Amino acid sequence: MNRGGKVGILEKTLGAIAPIDAAAAEAARRRQDNLTKPRGSLGKLEDLSIRLAGMTGKTTPVLDKKAIIVMAADHGVTEEGVSAYPQDVTAQMVGNFLAGGAAINVLARQIGARVAVVDVGVRGRVGAHPALRSRRIAEGTANMARGPAMSREQAVRSLETGISAVEEELALGLDILGTGDMGIGNTTPSSAITAVMTGAPVEECTGRGTGLDDEGLKRKVRVIARALEVNRPDPADALDVLAKVGGFEIGGLAGVMLAAAARRIPVVIDGFISGAAALIAFCLSPRAADYMIASHLSVERGHRIALAKLGLSPHLDLGMRLGEGTGAALTMFLADSAARLLREMATFGEAGVSDSEAVKK
Amino acid sequence: MNRGGKVGILEKTLGAIAPIDAAAAEAARRRQDNLTKPRGSLGKLEDLSIRLAGMTGKTTPVLDKKAIIVMAADHGVTEEGVSAYPQDVTAQMVGNFLAGGAAINVLARQIGARVAVVDVGVRGRVGAHPALRSRRIAEGTANMARGPAMSREQAVRSLETGISAVEEELALGLDILGTGDMGIGNTTPSSAITAVMTGAPVEECTGRGTGLDDEGLKRKVRVIARALEVNRPDPADALDVLAKVGGFEIGGLAGVMLAAAARRIPVVIDGFISGAAALIAFCLSPRAADYMIASHLSVERGHRIALAKLGLSPHLDLGMRLGEGTGAALTMFLADSAARLLREMATFGEAGVSDSEAVKK
Repeated sequence: MNRGGKVGILEKTLGAIAPIDAAAAEAARRRQDNLTKPRGSLGKLEDLSIRLAGMTGKTTPVLDKKAIIVMAADHGVTEEGVSAYPQDVTAQMVGNFLAGGAAINVLARQIGARVAVVDVGVRGRVGAHPALRSRRIAEGTANMARGPAMSREQAVRSLETGISAVEEELALGLDILGTGDMGIGNTTPSSAITAVMTGAPVEECTGRGTGLDDEGLKRKVRVIARALEVNRPDPADALDVLAKVGGFEIGGLAGVMLAAAARRIPVVIDGFISGAAALIAFCLSPRAADYMIASHLSVERGHRIALAKLGLSPHLDLGMRLGEGTGAALTMFLADSAARLLREMATFGEAGVSDSEAVKK
Repeated sequence: MNRGGKVGILEKTLGAIAPIDAAAAEAARRRQDNLTKPRGSLGKLEDLSIRLAGMTGKTTPVLDKKAIIVMAADHGVTEEGVSAYPQDVTAQMVGNFLAGGAAINVLARQIGARVAVVDVGVRGRVGAHPALRSRRIAEGTANMARGPAMSREQAVRSLETGISAVEEELALGLDILGTGDMGIGNTTPSSAITAVMTGAPVEECTGRGTGLDDEGLKRKVRVIARALEVNRPDPADALDVLAKVGGFEIGGLAGVMLAAAARRIPVVIDGFISGAAALIAFCLSPRAADYMIASHLSVERGHRIALAKLGLSPHLDLGMRLGEGTGAALTMFLADSAARLLREMATFGEAGVSDSEAVKK
């Protein structure tokens, strides 16, 4: 990772990831126990509020400024017939994001979040648009079923692109991040990464993506197995895994997660593709997972395996499998709920409400 | 129900509940299949959007005007030691609602909903407040372990109080409703209603409420069993069940649900207490359930049984057990998400995005 003696952005970011603030988390826990409700009755929202305090270092965090970073790129492996949609759809959907017509735009408007669309390697022409961040590393990855998807240097660049994207959002004001992806074919590298990083069999990490039939699913499993055999990625070396069977948007999102952890910004990870990116980030810095919030449980079957490895528990299970950051947006709302409850609810003392008989004994 | 030859508010409301608009639901389904995403990839949000179209009779419903009706009342059965909190807390928490310091206030502010607090029978003095709707039927119910909780006439009045509350909200502008409750001891009548209406054993319908210990839970089960033996409520007669083992706020919320169905307003039912109210409403008009949206799965073990009887599936499972409408508020956000996605997303044609290969074949 060290190129020419100078410490790179990636190394600096990894070095800046500190443990969560245990004192702030403990203060939040004490406050929760004095709010006007039976202890524990807000369930996972209480746990989440305490985690948010630990991440931000604030007893009553404010999550007003929200951004969702959507990374888009193409995948050479689509030539193996692993997706129900043609590759052109990546660029077309980037256009849809910029026009505000995609699902993520609708949900981001609802929760008051910005959407930052980053082209890290879409094939073909993406219409110029003032809101598009063009950070293209290449015109899509190479076909991982025949060799590495990208070079190790490109893997580092994809991570650093994600880190820079977070810096840009910080400059605009940022309390919480969400991750999103667009890339026809990208459940294939995500399944490959999940299998390598968790040790689970390829079949258990592979789903139907945007809608493969039974035959298509079998082909996809074979393609992933071949990619792993051809490339032999080293599970202890995240850059090797990312380079050999990853994607530019997956690397970008892993970079987003690392930068969020380094900057103490809670980051809500979307579905299966973001989960694969989280496995890359986790391998580079296990502590980064302390700043991650799992959003929903994707229909993609490998997602549960990835979350278990990360030690994260999802907040929603709505049968979704769209990506784009849609699960993240919904869960950013819940994170905001958790933070607001912690901050705005009255305590028993303030409200003049009697506490439980058991507590008074 | 017919009192003195004149048709009452309750009868009128029951008579006004019509089937959902199947044509609007079908039009919404067709629109979902043309939005820029793989078909079905938004999971339960797609199903919910189609149900919302059927309820409202609009292909792309708007859910901007939101209100949560919180009904509060006390319960004579608390003298049997069935709650971890003293009865004074009901009135104290009503004060907290009016001051804006309770969990439901925080979540209602977040989603832009009004909170209507209705006193249908709180014991003792509730501080006067311009926002409090005082519709007191009695100073709490009688102890159902020793006789009926209320008279049949009071049961009808509680339902009609709920119906009137919806009319008041309609006058202020209303697209979607949520239900909420406050009443120390009210998981006890809710468990009794759930057992009677579903036929499930009392033990399976009874949980720890605000925090009973093992001994307290055993006592609560015995108290409910005694109430059912003393009163012998008729499961085919909702008014009999409500009168004998119900509560004023439970009747009020059942009335809210019936009025919502009659007015084609989607109503998000909160947790276990709202679930018991929904069983009363469902018994009076099974069609009313078509206008109900289940919010979260409560920790109270009887809730799952109630939802199964209603044929409803919860949207959240966050380990919550607070009531007040907190689960409803979070799910009103999701309902709004579903409606916005249906309304605001671009179609494949509008966005110039290619559809799936399978569809084009």
